[in-house]
Amino acid sequence: VFSFLILVKLFSFLNFLSIDHFGFDENLTFQQRYLVADQHWKKDNGPILFYTGNEGDITWFCNNTGFMWDVAEELNAMLVFAEHRYYGESLPFGNESFSDSKHLNYLTSEQALADFAVLIEYLKMTIPGARYSPVIAIGGSYGGMLAAWFRMKYPHVVVGALAASAPIWQFGDLVPCGAYFSIVTDDFKKSGTGCSESIRNSWNAINRLSSTDAGLQWLSNTFHLCSPLKSLQDAAVLKNWLSETWVNLAMVNYPYKADFLQPLPAWPIQEVCKFLKDPSLSDKLLLQNVFQAVNLYYNYSGQASCLDMSETATKNLGQLGWYYQACTEMVMPMCTDGINDMFEPQKWDFDALSEECYRLWGVRPRPSWILSMYGGKNISSHSNIVFSNGGLDPWSAGGVTQNITDSLVAIVIPDGAHHLDLRSRNPLDPKSVQQARALEICYMKQWIEKARHNH
Amino acid sequence: VFSFLILVKLFSFLNFLSIDHFGFDENLTFQQRYLVADQHWKKDNGPILFYTGNEGDITWFCNNTGFMWDVAEELNAMLVFAEHRYYGESLPFGNESFSDSKHLNYLTSEQALADFAVLIEYLKMTIPGARYSPVIAIGGSYGGMLAAWFRMKYPHVVVGALAASAPIWQFGDLVPCGAYFSIVTDDFKKSGTGCSESIRNSWNAINRLSSTDAGLQWLSNTFHLCSPLKSLQDAAVLKNWLSETWVNLAMVNYPYKADFLQPLPAWPIQEVCKFLKDPSLSDKLLLQNVFQAVNLYYNYSGQASCLDMSETATKNLGQLGWYYQACTEMVMPMCTDGINDMFEPQKWDFDALSEECYRLWGVRPRPSWILSMYGGKNISSHSNIVFSNGGLDPWSAGGVTQNITDSLVAIVIPDGAHHLDLRSRNPLDPKSVQQARALEICYMKQWIEKARHNH
Repeated sequence: VFSFLILVKLFSFLNFLSIDHFGFDENLTFQQRYLVADQHWKKDNGPILFYTGNEGDITWFCNNTGFMWDVAEELNAMLVFAEHRYYGESLPFGNESFSDSKHLNYLTSEQALADFAVLIEYLKMTIPGARYSPVIAIGGSYGGMLAAWFRMKYPHVVVGALAASAPIWQFGDLVPCGAYFSIVTDDFKKSGTGCSESIRNSWNAINRLSSTDAGLQWLSNTFHLCSPLKSLQDAAVLKNWLSETWVNLAMVNYPYKADFLQPLPAWPIQEVCKFLKDPSLSDKLLLQNVFQAVNLYYNYSGQASCLDMSETATKNLGQLGWYYQACTEMVMPMCTDGINDMFEPQKWDFDALSEECYRLWGVRPRPSWILSMYGGKNISSHSNIVFSNGGLDPWSAGGVTQNITDSLVAIVIPDGAHHLDLRSRNPLDPKSVQQARALEICYMKQWIEKARHNH
Repeated sequence: VFSFLILVKLFSFLNFLSIDHFGFDENLTFQQRYLVADQHWKKDNGPILFYTGNEGDITWFCNNTGFMWDVAEELNAMLVFAEHRYYGESLPFGNESFSDSKHLNYLTSEQALADFAVLIEYLKMTIPGARYSPVIAIGGSYGGMLAAWFRMKYPHVVVGALAASAPIWQFGDLVPCGAYFSIVTDDFKKSGTGCSESIRNSWNAINRLSSTDAGLQWLSNTFHLCSPLKSLQDAAVLKNWLSETWVNLAMVNYPYKADFLQPLPAWPIQEVCKFLKDPSLSDKLLLQNVFQAVNLYYNYSGQASCLDMSETATKNLGQLGWYYQACTEMVMPMCTDGINDMFEPQKWDFDALSEECYRLWGVRPRPSWILSMYGGKNISSHSNIVFSNGGLDPWSAGGVTQNITDSLVAIVIPDGAHHLDLRSRNPLDPKSVQQARALEICYMKQWIEKARHNH
């Protein structure tokens, strides 16, 4: 499947790790998958770029983190991509991993970071010439949070971290809950006249049509839905699915043809907005246009015979695992008001989340734990972390976009969507992302130099 | 019992905390006990000195950490003493807490640090005027390790840490396993002619006598043992008990009459050595002297009708809990060779420990985990920790006795035993501990000043 990986000699390995780093009752181990590419590595303690895997198949992240491949030669670096427990093939209890809250109990960021620490120590012990290799953590999105937190909690293991599009402040009340959807809205507003207004008007159009069986039938046909809508509840599913589609488009609004969450053309929001120029159309005409827009996202290849509301992004992401994490540690308050954003107003409702989490998993979220653990905004005593954020990326709302100290640095890429800087270089890259990458490389070289000097 | 505490208004509280901070399956809580003394506290965000409780009853540590009481007024500080889970009255499962490995599963340093972090956040939220109070962690021995690790892992919660007599390097192969007992030996060597040699010769004397039933009977009588020796195995228990006695004497070799592990006179090793001047005596005469020596340790009051080998120190220490910790995370290699120390040669035997731990608790120790978690000797990126060590203290063998950076500072007290600096000031304090305390206060003031400035 990943033919280019085979060409550059990527090796896949498994490492035995404790299922529970923080308890000794169950002395079980599991196999963590990790990928290694060392063709550019300088054996005499050349640096290691370590991808802190997030909520998905590590081969997919490996293929979508071209930046690491692009800099490997310049830094004489070994690349390591470590899969996050409970994702891809790194399932602690195999098929049973998601069976109940007992088996899911070891799916936390703390366990994942401990996995990374123990893996790196193992690599340094076992790979000849790697014993004193400086290691830099790199990750995007949740993986970016992990990279930053890894440097904060295990500074003896990694000399620095590049945390791309990492919303480490999307917790508690550190940022306004509406900022995220307001950035999504701005992306659509900027990408075509009438675009965000058309979407804002679409919700009531759906509400009106879904009040009758005929209307539900019409919506099912118009949106080419694989499972037809049968009730008002289904209409809510339709609206959630559309919302998620707009959000995903904001995340992957890349300046060139790409296939991250879905195969898409360059600047996909501009393409989508070509269908959404007139917000004043009648309900049915407006929603036919909305279908054209989402059809571009879900069916750019033209192969889909119907649209499946249960899938909004690539299957390489571990939806189930992430939902559990959102029900335990990763409680990110979000809200909309329909004024500063183009969505139906919805308050942040922690109690509803908690009930839903208890119903689904038998667990209750602990919304303040991440702040206690990782410090919230009070992180100035740490060092050597670059936080990069794209101005188009809704996740930048919860990101670090201003320097905290000389060595906790924020890089903003105004024309960038979700961790554009981690992608392979491309002729259509905006200048801003080229400069961001250059600066990131500069910091990495400084960390490596300093580590050599200290050693 | 602790009348002086009542005089200075010490309040005892309970706080509900998660039993498992790192997992969400069991959403149980327990009550952590903590003590607060605020009569010197400046309500407008005056600092908080936070004792990171270790393996024992917190009221006992509170009574033996007079240094905090002595500096409270000068720093306008609130004192908080937090009890470590599984010790004193902070038992997560009440009487069941030690019943099996399942109930013991939450007895780790990581859980204890998380308890401290959550407690401090709770205090800052709920005590009027404490919201921006800078907090300094203070602890001795294992509590000193916790204080240092707390600053390393939760620098957003504490602005600095005083880690007194904290052997954070007594793990893996960071220090020679024999250094500890060699310091014990030096203490005896310095305290009287023939003293360490007498003890060195005592082991074979015991071995010879315990080879006959009459000899065992004689030993039981001579040492006034509550339970007479019946076999060679019992003789090994006698030797272990004697070894532990010498070690404990080295730890509490304070310059004045004190009652830490046992009530003792000033410079107790000197007193003990008065009985051990002639190593060349016959077995029986030598061992009668050894009895006089240990009788001073166990029976300074003269009240004991017999000596109980199952108790070597105060009952305020939680022996059971600490033994579990030593069987899981706290694996501290120790060895003797009989040449550089006065003990019977004994190699460090990890496998034997592991078997014993499995037999007793059903758990296996993970000897390298503490190094992975807390960084071993590679801790230079942290800040604001003072490590103090006494030159007479065997635990200084695993302590930080040289500055690592400008803000990771080592203070050595040549005439000090185990965390002498944490005890109340005393007219008989050597100059070296007075200076150490002055320097510690100076650093604390700097941390507080800097925190105020940053805020």
